[in-house]
Amino acid sequence: MYVILVYDFGEKRVGKMLKLCRKYLNWIQNSVFEGEISEVKLKEMMQQVNRFIDKDEDSIILFKSISQVYMDKEIVGKERCSTDVFL
Amino acid sequence: MYVILVYDFGEKRVGKMLKLCRKYLNWIQNSVFEGEISEVKLKEMMQQVNRFIDKDEDSIILFKSISQVYMDKEIVGKERCSTDVFL
Repeated sequence: MYVILVYDFGEKRVGKMLKLCRKYLNWIQNSVFEGEISEVKLKEMMQQVNRFIDKDEDSIILFKSISQVYMDKEIVGKERCSTDVFL
Repeated sequence: MYVILVYDFGEKRVGKMLKLCRKYLNWIQNSVFEGEISEVKLKEMMQQVNRFIDKDEDSIILFKSISQVYMDKEIVGKERCSTDVFL
């Protein structure tokens, strides 16, 4: 399964979320990750998220597709990659 | 065509980008928009972006799909909508 994950977390939890996402997905921009992941792995990840997410403050949007084939990705401007130095 | 647009713009241009995106797409989280848009309209939008984007600093990721049917969207935590007060 191919997923795009976008999060918006409070300052106190954002570092934890970033670290967790990097374990399972590929970072593409700020708080945006993408990647191929199995249902099981995604469930595992979300269980970990549930330990620290503040559901009144934080937000995750998950776009799921059976395959990346259905999504065409286009980057305009500066291309970032996971080797970029950031936070 | 269904698109997900994520942007990361420098402080000086971010307001302009936000305003432009709201004209064409639906805001779903921070710098994330989605929506049905025609090729023509998307091209029109990107032409306007090109007038102010700093390609060394700013970045846009566009995920395009023939139809939203291929993408399943799931929201975890706080759900935002375009009526939220922000920025």
